[in-house]
Amino acid sequence: MKKITIGIIGAGRIGRLHAKNIIHIPEVRIKTISDLFADSAREWASKIGIENVVADYEEILIDSEIEAIFICSPTDTHIPIIKRAAEEGKHIFCEKPISFSVEDTEIALAAVEKAGVKLQIGFNRRFDRNLLKVRNTVEDGVIGEPHIVKITSRDPAPPSIEYIEKSGGLFFDMSIHDFDMARYVSGSEVVEVYANGGNLIDPEIEKAGDIDTAVITLKFENGAIGIIDNSRKAVYGYDQRVEVFGSKGSITVENDRPTSAEISTEEGVFKDKVKYFFLERYKDAYITETYAFIDSILHNKPLLCTGNDGLQAEKIAKAAKQSLVERRPVKITSET
Amino acid sequence: MKKITIGIIGAGRIGRLHAKNIIHIPEVRIKTISDLFADSAREWASKIGIENVVADYEEILIDSEIEAIFICSPTDTHIPIIKRAAEEGKHIFCEKPISFSVEDTEIALAAVEKAGVKLQIGFNRRFDRNLLKVRNTVEDGVIGEPHIVKITSRDPAPPSIEYIEKSGGLFFDMSIHDFDMARYVSGSEVVEVYANGGNLIDPEIEKAGDIDTAVITLKFENGAIGIIDNSRKAVYGYDQRVEVFGSKGSITVENDRPTSAEISTEEGVFKDKVKYFFLERYKDAYITETYAFIDSILHNKPLLCTGNDGLQAEKIAKAAKQSLVERRPVKITSET
Amino acid sequence: MKKITIGIIGAGRIGRLHAKNIIHIPEVRIKTISDLFADSAREWASKIGIENVVADYEEILIDSEIEAIFICSPTDTHIPIIKRAAEEGKHIFCEKPISFSVEDTEIALAAVEKAGVKLQIGFNRRFDRNLLKVRNTVEDGVIGEPHIVKITSRDPAPPSIEYIEKSGGLFFDMSIHDFDMARYVSGSEVVEVYANGGNLIDPEIEKAGDIDTAVITLKFENGAIGIIDNSRKAVYGYDQRVEVFGSKGSITVENDRPTSAEISTEEGVFKDKVKYFFLERYKDAYITETYAFIDSILHNKPLLCTGNDGLQAEKIAKAAKQSLVERRPVKITSET
Amino acid sequence: MKKITIGIIGAGRIGRLHAKNIIHIPEVRIKTISDLFADSAREWASKIGIENVVADYEEILIDSEIEAIFICSPTDTHIPIIKRAAEEGKHIFCEKPISFSVEDTEIALAAVEKAGVKLQIGFNRRFDRNLLKVRNTVEDGVIGEPHIVKITSRDPAPPSIEYIEKSGGLFFDMSIHDFDMARYVSGSEVVEVYANGGNLIDPEIEKAGDIDTAVITLKFENGAIGIIDNSRKAVYGYDQRVEVFGSKGSITVENDRPTSAEISTEEGVFKDKVKYFFLERYKDAYITETYAFIDSILHNKPLLCTGNDGLQAEKIAKAAKQSLVERRPVKITSET
Repeated sequence: MKKITIGIIGAGRIGRLHAKNIIHIPEVRIKTISDLFADSAREWASKIGIENVVADYEEILIDSEIEAIFICSPTDTHIPIIKRAAEEGKHIFCEKPISFSVEDTEIALAAVEKAGVKLQIGFNRRFDRNLLKVRNTVEDGVIGEPHIVKITSRDPAPPSIEYIEKSGGLFFDMSIHDFDMARYVSGSEVVEVYANGGNLIDPEIEKAGDIDTAVITLKFENGAIGIIDNSRKAVYGYDQRVEVFGSKGSITVENDRPTSAEISTEEGVFKDKVKYFFLERYKDAYITETYAFIDSILHNKPLLCTGNDGLQAEKIAKAAKQSLVERRPVKITSET
Repeated sequence: MKKITIGIIGAGRIGRLHAKNIIHIPEVRIKTISDLFADSAREWASKIGIENVVADYEEILIDSEIEAIFICSPTDTHIPIIKRAAEEGKHIFCEKPISFSVEDTEIALAAVEKAGVKLQIGFNRRFDRNLLKVRNTVEDGVIGEPHIVKITSRDPAPPSIEYIEKSGGLFFDMSIHDFDMARYVSGSEVVEVYANGGNLIDPEIEKAGDIDTAVITLKFENGAIGIIDNSRKAVYGYDQRVEVFGSKGSITVENDRPTSAEISTEEGVFKDKVKYFFLERYKDAYITETYAFIDSILHNKPLLCTGNDGLQAEKIAKAAKQSLVERRPVKITSET
Repeated sequence: MKKITIGIIGAGRIGRLHAKNIIHIPEVRIKTISDLFADSAREWASKIGIENVVADYEEILIDSEIEAIFICSPTDTHIPIIKRAAEEGKHIFCEKPISFSVEDTEIALAAVEKAGVKLQIGFNRRFDRNLLKVRNTVEDGVIGEPHIVKITSRDPAPPSIEYIEKSGGLFFDMSIHDFDMARYVSGSEVVEVYANGGNLIDPEIEKAGDIDTAVITLKFENGAIGIIDNSRKAVYGYDQRVEVFGSKGSITVENDRPTSAEISTEEGVFKDKVKYFFLERYKDAYITETYAFIDSILHNKPLLCTGNDGLQAEKIAKAAKQSLVERRPVKITSET
Repeated sequence: MKKITIGIIGAGRIGRLHAKNIIHIPEVRIKTISDLFADSAREWASKIGIENVVADYEEILIDSEIEAIFICSPTDTHIPIIKRAAEEGKHIFCEKPISFSVEDTEIALAAVEKAGVKLQIGFNRRFDRNLLKVRNTVEDGVIGEPHIVKITSRDPAPPSIEYIEKSGGLFFDMSIHDFDMARYVSGSEVVEVYANGGNLIDPEIEKAGDIDTAVITLKFENGAIGIIDNSRKAVYGYDQRVEVFGSKGSITVENDRPTSAEISTEEGVFKDKVKYFFLERYKDAYITETYAFIDSILHNKPLLCTGNDGLQAEKIAKAAKQSLVERRPVKITSET
């Protein structure tokens, strides 16, 4: 069995999630994890059998045994790490967004291209079986030419104010997945954005300069119209639905629920709430995306989610922000 | 517009239901309603525009203007009324069961046949759009040869003990609909019955000599196997589902609910309970069955639910009762 | 039984629909129907028992026996008829939209108010059991304060080009129902509109100066955001879904289907398409709205759908048209 | 991390399935796999990193390093292996059924008890999230006292005639899962069985002395009635549904489908078929049952599926066979 040695940069929530998934892939060996707070990461790491924990990610980048890295550190560290990793000839899995600046992202992508390494962006939803089915069905022409694309994406609870202050705001930390999904399921680029936003949940979010509720309309290159609705707080759980309506029909995919049980009593009929959040809902998708990345390296297959996919989503996020501020539709171009 | 004049015998719950439906059929005029308690029926009747209320149904039978009658009186009156109505040349709509005695029913059917009048039995479910779809789908061969027929039929609350004492018991007042449905959706006759029964709801029902929970298995002429499950008390409402499984697939039909609303809150997901009871669930089917009867008379069309359908269901009910007592499968024959 | 005598103006599709529903209401007598093409209407009318068919609606308006009228003639006749009917002291049921001009509508409403007659607008969906459930659930506070309102409303096939040329266009003939629904389910007025439109179905529609696909975003007085998506052609039928998402949860209602049958075969699982169009889907709602109107007159109950409801929907339609042309969000005021 | 060393006996379909699941459990090391055809198993084993493949399972049983074994060899080898493994003090995971003879099974269970080792039976469905939810809901009293238990269990395609000749027949190789499920979800023992069977699919199955379609009714100790319906051939896939109806309500669980996609076109509405067979449907349950077994050994927790559970299911299967032959209900006792 061909094996690959990797390093993980960042041992926060998402870094640990990837690590726990990766230890189950027989073809991969996690050699090193880096985290600024190496000491607190060490105990956790040793429990899942990873002995090498370092504070400085540079140790991973210069380790010639390591062929690929997962970048799970804060967004503002992504660009320098990508550039260095590309220099060192390492394949890169980078969490979304690549950066908060379209220009910076473009520079990093150029470095990746020059080095000839692979760069996969962590748009995990592309690997969800339901959303993949939407894409494939549209691509196969089953519903004809897409006319309307609808994406519902609501979180169960807002993140901390600290997070919001550094995340780039709702469009960059949350809607960015939906911007990618819009391109992914429609197979078309977005050319115009109009964003409606509101502060309906928590005044602290407004004070932090962000919104908590948004409805974004998109125009696609092919003339189709897209709708994304976002909320930071769906009290019933993580609401993730997609619909594409076209000239020959429509496809919808529903939320996953823990079980299919339906309980009927004198009071009414009860079903399970939707799965709580992304860790539950996209559990399998997170696993599949890491397999796909490893598989792409081992067998030199094309990536299903490239650096350009990251870049285009950022362009849409940027335009949405501008639209919200200027209260008008904003045009964008997908050229890199 | 061709019109028909009718009389209704019995102004209890089901007689009033039919009357209220019939007054909306422009082709029909209800001339007379008979009820032993004519005085108490009079007020109700005049409210819906029927002025002629009599105590003795014979007045309806000898009225030469009346072309058709609805028999909605207690089961033990059905046979003499059918025989007299047939003599008078009137078309007959009779509520189920025709009688508690297969032999009596056979005699009445012979009288009907001799007189050449139409006799429709009140198996209203045959006119439900969902159950009709099952029958048509099976008949069209979409699911191939039927192998397994499953009927769930549960009432929301037991009837009064007085009713149970006169109704012929669960098999005759409740399962009889399911016996008819088994023949209707499968298109095959029942040749053997095995009945399991229990008293799990109310000991008073046991004292009255009846059961409150039953599971009945059927063997059909074509080799298929049927299952009926009955309960006198589904606290969540009137549970009515049918499934036919065959060599090329299966068809299932679900309960109707008041609305399709799904409400998600922090506590869970809530849907409407099923419709409460037969009046709600089969509202349209009751209307359709009366239209069909009138239509059959006006345009001399074949009936969708004949006297023989009533007879066969009674044979199955009788065999089920015997099976329960003798604790063994009982054979039946559909020959009349 | 108290009875009411009515007249119907216009014997086109919707006029005939109302007439057929009304003949089943025992409390109502249809005395006269008027239609420019009285001769062709006469045969149809006599079949359902209405003998009096006239060419000039004025005959209805001056008939002192007639207490209420249904206006089912083309939109451009609504205003003069309403004004005349109000003068004559007749209660009015008027199909939507009242007119294409917010100013004209305001004048007509003033005449109605002065005369003290009742005016109900034909927003039939308000009487649909599913949509009524949404309104009541929101009103009861079950889902908290509304944040996002989503309305999907797609027709199965475009109307004729002739119709489009006279209808006021998609916003006035189709979305107007959705504008009313947005106000109805949210319980809040619309203060801003942004409309995206496209011509994706039939270039003839574009030539006629209209669009065939639209996504409209709304801002409500309470801060909530609304989304309406419209298509002239959903090949699978009349797609009518509503969702309200709020601070304490969400409610969704689904399409009605002819049956609940689910057929599983080797090829897949098949369900019925949604009901074909408004006549099928809102069959009961059309009946209920006429009952409600009659009931309101007979028992002097408040109307569930007033002239002001008609006016506000027209204001939104007008703003949507302006937004589409000027490619920017347009503010509106609900003051009359 | 505490680790455990195991051996697997039998490298057929189910042995390989368990092996592939177990290599992902960090706490387990598979040291040896035995198979009569060791040579053909070797290539497969080395691919998943297991180097030690032997022909004689005795090598596993005498290996003192091995603490637990998985018995995945043909049913007729189970009893001798269980007895020997118990002698050697090894914990045992044994596929169902334990044997075709209630007496033999009792002897093996006695040996296990004497040795004080753990014995888990491979009723994988107990670990399915949906079926577990049914059990827990019933146990928690949510639906009150169970009255009716309904289990639908249909395979997508019949096994080979060779398999049928050695499997003990439909009741022992297929319904046995449902007999266990009946006990599991109801929390009550089965006291009487009546079996209806038919040969509706393939005459070769009849020639092999087996049936291909069955409806089995059960009586439970608590008075509830159970229904199992089985078919060897549901052309649409593996149909696995359970319903428990009780004094306070009911719970139903539905089939899993590959995706939740619903595609609407001019032809109708299409959904995914149910998952094809047990490998797809119970993929997670197979993983969970091995984790549970390992967890039970590592932390000395009680098993969720014991040898007695295997024994009771076999008693029901034996009674069902007798009922089918003698065409009468057969009583059973759950005493060991």
